[in-house]
Amino acid sequence: MENKKENFSEWYNEIITLAELSDKRYPVKGMNVWLPYGWKIMSLIDSIVRKAVDKKNFQEVNFPILIGRSMLEVEFEHIRGFENEIYWVTKGGKENLEEELALRPTSESAMYPMFSLWVRSHADLPLKIYQIVSVYRYETKHTRSFIRIREIHFFEAHTAHATYEDAEAQMDQYKEIWREISSQLCLPYFYDQRPDWDKFPGAKYTIAFDTVLPSGRSLQIGTIHQYGTNFSKNYDIKYLKEDGSFDYVHQTTYGMSERLLAAIIGIHGDDKGLVLPPDVAPIQVIIIPIPGSGVLEYARDVENTLSTINIRVKVDDRENYTPGYKFNDWEMRGVPLRIEVGEREVKNRTLTLSMRNIPGKVTIERSKVIYEVPDALIRIREKMMDDAQKVFRDHVFRASKLEDFTNEGLITAFWCGSKECSDRIESETEKSALGFMVGSNETGKCVVCGKEGRLAVFSKSY
Amino acid sequence: MENKKENFSEWYNEIITLAELSDKRYPVKGMNVWLPYGWKIMSLIDSIVRKAVDKKNFQEVNFPILIGRSMLEVEFEHIRGFENEIYWVTKGGKENLEEELALRPTSESAMYPMFSLWVRSHADLPLKIYQIVSVYRYETKHTRSFIRIREIHFFEAHTAHATYEDAEAQMDQYKEIWREISSQLCLPYFYDQRPDWDKFPGAKYTIAFDTVLPSGRSLQIGTIHQYGTNFSKNYDIKYLKEDGSFDYVHQTTYGMSERLLAAIIGIHGDDKGLVLPPDVAPIQVIIIPIPGSGVLEYARDVENTLSTINIRVKVDDRENYTPGYKFNDWEMRGVPLRIEVGEREVKNRTLTLSMRNIPGKVTIERSKVIYEVPDALIRIREKMMDDAQKVFRDHVFRASKLEDFTNEGLITAFWCGSKECSDRIESETEKSALGFMVGSNETGKCVVCGKEGRLAVFSKSY
Repeated sequence: MENKKENFSEWYNEIITLAELSDKRYPVKGMNVWLPYGWKIMSLIDSIVRKAVDKKNFQEVNFPILIGRSMLEVEFEHIRGFENEIYWVTKGGKENLEEELALRPTSESAMYPMFSLWVRSHADLPLKIYQIVSVYRYETKHTRSFIRIREIHFFEAHTAHATYEDAEAQMDQYKEIWREISSQLCLPYFYDQRPDWDKFPGAKYTIAFDTVLPSGRSLQIGTIHQYGTNFSKNYDIKYLKEDGSFDYVHQTTYGMSERLLAAIIGIHGDDKGLVLPPDVAPIQVIIIPIPGSGVLEYARDVENTLSTINIRVKVDDRENYTPGYKFNDWEMRGVPLRIEVGEREVKNRTLTLSMRNIPGKVTIERSKVIYEVPDALIRIREKMMDDAQKVFRDHVFRASKLEDFTNEGLITAFWCGSKECSDRIESETEKSALGFMVGSNETGKCVVCGKEGRLAVFSKSY
Repeated sequence: MENKKENFSEWYNEIITLAELSDKRYPVKGMNVWLPYGWKIMSLIDSIVRKAVDKKNFQEVNFPILIGRSMLEVEFEHIRGFENEIYWVTKGGKENLEEELALRPTSESAMYPMFSLWVRSHADLPLKIYQIVSVYRYETKHTRSFIRIREIHFFEAHTAHATYEDAEAQMDQYKEIWREISSQLCLPYFYDQRPDWDKFPGAKYTIAFDTVLPSGRSLQIGTIHQYGTNFSKNYDIKYLKEDGSFDYVHQTTYGMSERLLAAIIGIHGDDKGLVLPPDVAPIQVIIIPIPGSGVLEYARDVENTLSTINIRVKVDDRENYTPGYKFNDWEMRGVPLRIEVGEREVKNRTLTLSMRNIPGKVTIERSKVIYEVPDALIRIREKMMDDAQKVFRDHVFRASKLEDFTNEGLITAFWCGSKECSDRIESETEKSALGFMVGSNETGKCVVCGKEGRLAVFSKSY
């Protein structure tokens, strides 16, 4: 296997193929096939997201994939932001369509004509929906699995509120949701407020969740957007106020994609392969029988016990492979916990545990398996988070002048906020402004022009 | 509400709107928005399907939506069967694409180029995968929610086997899977082998699962197809046999769609609204508090108890609605079981149960709720199945001559198998051959031409 530290890109591509996450040989450019193991991980990520937003009273919907050109053109900045990357359906059967239809690049223009029918009065607000669907971008840049592709597995939440304050409270709730999701996925991040020229087309402002991969490049893994009334005015989404007048709703959105999986692979993996957070591992516990009398029955019995407490567990009973081969194979696939059972374990009524990310082996009593295994999975997750935080911190550098931007990773520095200064930094260091760091009140002189500035984050990004 | 018996079509359309399953006002023709309640029911149907096929070692994948024209044209009959209903993407951004890309109408031509890479030897077989995705048909016929639409929520399983016998055994396994699914959805059906002119384009033969709606028209709710080597020869899917020679794989597929939901609505609903099988009801138990001292706490306590045994339960604590309004509202939405709690129930430590499809009320002890509620849900399901079977039988008529075809429903009759005789029946009765009834060995004289025939099913179909 490639060395992760030295050849991150090659390592990343290789592990995706070895662990059978995705097949890149599909004959249409920029579109990959989700293989069973990869799809299962992604589905588990989706479940975590669903659970987190359902708790906050979001409702799941599913909108059509096709959007008429006239629907898209309602919001000028929005269409302008996407027009170069839209796939257009122009024919049905052998006929030319009367109106060209876009494959959704995102769903504002599909949803908001319906919002304008759904929202009537104060009582209909807040409206909070989401969907998990594919979106499409005719990418002209170099594509990369789960990071930059033409068919994107996408989560998008959309809300409408009576007031701007309610919409701002929603922005805070998004952060709360994200804290919960990111802790299950063991992903460290910064909140950055994107510069105006880099915000979502049509948004009032955009806050991104940025992480960093071992290559030193940042990866945007989520965004939340405050739309204010920018869309509602164009799509005519109004509600009757209690005083009898009408007002436009204030809107927000929250977007994430399979980049969550990219981050999991890139941040947690090692030179043996994937390391999966227990919450998204299709197999959380693999039981490897070391051939011997009574071993297989014992292994199956442990499997049954763990199944009853909803652990995703499997006995690897393949006959033509050695235990050593199996150890490596499941380590490569990132299974968090391995249980070895041989004749000694059968005789002593014990189990030998080996954690994917913690060296050494632990012997436990068979009778305590339903306490010890969930405990071990929690320890694995905590260790993954600690390690990831440490690597993240190692990739964050404070710069007080342009020369300090040479480190590979995220650079924090004071910045006046101007595009000129960001461009200057980019031309000299390839790093550009991700945005002001949200939550920091630090002020100081811009590293480029010396004017008064605030703390910002810079990086070369995916 | 419309009268189901007298105006089935109007009733069907009305209940979809009233119960908020789907919004038909989306601005692109033939494409509807899945609303939260409808989407949740469909997702529960999907879960049942997933569980049933996962048990048989199918693996879930996800293929790209776009298929190059050259990929589609590999199998001549297949493309010919779909070419008039394919949506074509011809532009990316402002550029014309080099090759036109189809929105998948079904995924043979997306999957089989990959199968030819995946299948190498006997050890790779059987290959058994499925996906749940949207497929697209540029329908020119009149569209109808969940029955005939342009964006179809689709389940498709695809297999490859070493021998024809293995593929035939798979066809039998599909029926076993379908028996399990249909019993959870409480759907009666016939297996019909489609006539050659009506089989899936490219298939060797097609067996359909046909049910009948109260309109008397049949609805195809599932199909399984034996492809033999028709596709593998064109897509070059070969495996190395143990004797060192190569052979083409034998393939099968299994398709279902949101027509499962259409059948549930149409078959089980009544003049009060939906009636949902407990396994697909987003809310299985609705608790209605009749205002009084201690009632709400008591209701919430019951809700908690039922949640712990994974019942989907909700207390309707809306303040501005009367209990009577709530009864009607949840009956309309098809909730299988209602629990009423008032001061009397609190005092006596009892609960009053009312089943959606069984008249009368039942009083149970609060302490037995975790036994009584699951029991009631089973009784509801069994009664739904019995009632549906009865209605199904009432819609099946045996015909011995053409004049007997006037009944509204499914007609069984002897048929020689010729298109001429089916066309003759159609021109006189609007009913045509669904196909020979699978599992029947009865033979007799064709009702049209008098030649030797077998038992077949005829209907006017959706």
